[in-house]
Amino acid sequence: MLRLAPFAAARCLPAGPRLGPLCLAGNCGSFARSRPPAGDRGALSRQVRAAAGGERLPVLKTPKGTRDHPPAQAALRERLLGAVVSCFKRHGAAAIDTPVLELRETLLGKYGEESKLIYELQDQGGELLALRYDLTVPFARYLAMNKITKMKRYHVAKVYRRDNPATTRGRYREFYQCDFDIAGQFDPMIPDAECLKIVHEILSDLQLGDFVIKVNDRRILNGVFAVCGVPESKLISACSTVDKLDKVPWEEVRSEMVAEKGLSPEAADRIGDIGIERIFSILEQRLEASGEKLRTTETQVLVATPQKHLLAARMKLISELWDAGIKAEMLYKKDPKLLKQLQYCEDTGIPLAAIVGEQELADGVVKLRDVATRKEVDIPREKLIDEIRRRLEP
Amino acid sequence: MLRLAPFAAARCLPAGPRLGPLCLAGNCGSFARSRPPAGDRGALSRQVRAAAGGERLPVLKTPKGTRDHPPAQAALRERLLGAVVSCFKRHGAAAIDTPVLELRETLLGKYGEESKLIYELQDQGGELLALRYDLTVPFARYLAMNKITKMKRYHVAKVYRRDNPATTRGRYREFYQCDFDIAGQFDPMIPDAECLKIVHEILSDLQLGDFVIKVNDRRILNGVFAVCGVPESKLISACSTVDKLDKVPWEEVRSEMVAEKGLSPEAADRIGDIGIERIFSILEQRLEASGEKLRTTETQVLVATPQKHLLAARMKLISELWDAGIKAEMLYKKDPKLLKQLQYCEDTGIPLAAIVGEQELADGVVKLRDVATRKEVDIPREKLIDEIRRRLEP
Repeated sequence: MLRLAPFAAARCLPAGPRLGPLCLAGNCGSFARSRPPAGDRGALSRQVRAAAGGERLPVLKTPKGTRDHPPAQAALRERLLGAVVSCFKRHGAAAIDTPVLELRETLLGKYGEESKLIYELQDQGGELLALRYDLTVPFARYLAMNKITKMKRYHVAKVYRRDNPATTRGRYREFYQCDFDIAGQFDPMIPDAECLKIVHEILSDLQLGDFVIKVNDRRILNGVFAVCGVPESKLISACSTVDKLDKVPWEEVRSEMVAEKGLSPEAADRIGDIGIERIFSILEQRLEASGEKLRTTETQVLVATPQKHLLAARMKLISELWDAGIKAEMLYKKDPKLLKQLQYCEDTGIPLAAIVGEQELADGVVKLRDVATRKEVDIPREKLIDEIRRRLEP
Repeated sequence: MLRLAPFAAARCLPAGPRLGPLCLAGNCGSFARSRPPAGDRGALSRQVRAAAGGERLPVLKTPKGTRDHPPAQAALRERLLGAVVSCFKRHGAAAIDTPVLELRETLLGKYGEESKLIYELQDQGGELLALRYDLTVPFARYLAMNKITKMKRYHVAKVYRRDNPATTRGRYREFYQCDFDIAGQFDPMIPDAECLKIVHEILSDLQLGDFVIKVNDRRILNGVFAVCGVPESKLISACSTVDKLDKVPWEEVRSEMVAEKGLSPEAADRIGDIGIERIFSILEQRLEASGEKLRTTETQVLVATPQKHLLAARMKLISELWDAGIKAEMLYKKDPKLLKQLQYCEDTGIPLAAIVGEQELADGVVKLRDVATRKEVDIPREKLIDEIRRRLEP
């Protein structure tokens, strides 16, 4: 017999004020829980009390160069990363995951002068650690550690750089990388061609408009610089400046290349950069400009009641829907007003409402309402699931 | 016009030995790349050279209490977390994401005596940071910062505890939590009931066998302890011991409760714990015991050739499959042997092989081979996509 975490039981943190101003309730390492009303122990009420009493408020912010993703952003990011991962899978890559933490010595000396941007962990006894700076060195460590000589893998995960990024341009200290690598010894150019195809597929899928793909080979880079008019004597030096695009805006890189490295402004203007976070920023701005409202949940049906004392009927019906795999919600109110329930559908984009009232219960039916057209039809209870599935078909 | 990261161009790290022993090639923050053969600059060859030359090898390991997830584990984890997230979505929760890093002051004082298990980052100038210890305090910070009083959110992510975990029992210093929370003020017990339903749905989906769900409320906890035979005077004290299940095996917790806290052995035996990582361990062990081979890729078709000089034909065909959304691979060899190609299908579980030889090209067909039955049929080229889709239908 399995025992599920007795939530508070297994992690019985002291409740109440001792938890400090930010914690809403007890702690729980497991699945699901509901929060008590933000009453005495709530963060907000505590904030209010503290403000009233002149107590010092904690700083409520995320660390510099990092950000929360509220639901709309999280949904957009899921869509973007989903497109990327589905392309990687289409090309037969396997996923791996590595820890966010690496031994410091694994990372040191791998990134040239950028090592100073590595987040190091405090020495709290034991190994000296750091946060990964990219997914490449951890992959190399993984291959070497497991003596793997051949592997096609993808890895989509956050990396960390103690940088001074231009957050307005979608650059952060914590950001995603989407890596697809084919490691091994193969006939020339065959895996390279597939990598180009992948980049092409992803950028085309995302409908970002025209794009130019530049290829990763020092010899080609030298060629690109030559075509841009960078004299051969300045190749290495131009390189290390272009490399700063991670940290400083293009304008600064451009001016460094022109002022310090002696490139012509025309040559500088032909060099650019974009990563997955930039693409995310572009999609975000585009969504905002379009005025389109991205749904943050996938709920298909709201279970509603038109009269009082029908909480049990709603719970029974919603349970049937959940068990049939239908995404369903109800309001957490004993006796909500019908208007409020329908308004909730409109606000959150739920397409269908399944309404059970006294009459419907007596007749053995459920009133199925199309939220957009406001049309309502009585459906025999035993046919409800099929009818909902039919309506939700694309 | 968008410009895509000129991979090496934008991050032109010095190639070769300066990169250190672990790095296979140049660095790249973007999508896809192929690795040069692990030749002069390769990690492995460097390892071998270093070993031969008596040079000190770097320690190739992950930090204590952390682990890599190789493809089979990553695939299993994707399946597990997919089941959890799909349940959360079925219940209308929105996703949020928060940084792995938090201000130290956000975390301090929130976890009682366990604060000593928080990973702190080194003071490298700027804010004092730490790694999140759970997803609860960041959620509370998010709610308070954004003045949100009502929210149903889920968050599936890694958390960090500088613990001495029993890794054999699926406990780690870096581990996943799957949180579903309903924050706000509602009529009593309605959201609580849904949380129970969610746990029930997830554990039933995973077919882990019988389970017991325990409920998170200090009053209920006190009741559970009372039923277990813990005297009222020992409730708080028993709590803080049970809480250690994170760090030490059940046997130690049990003996602490019996020896130090004075509980009866019978009472102690009625208390247990499980989290998402434990479930992962159980699924992993079960998979191993069953001998079933979990596919680590989703490739549906291998594009193969029976003769030499047909690389271009393979690339053209595979490109058509990719563009039609079919998951396809080919070997990265100019002229692979047919037997090798079919063997690759068997090894990796690819169900279909699409074979183009000189005869097939002349006839305008593709030979479609069912890898399991070894049956081959010529399919007109223009009907190939449809036929593959038909065969792949569940």
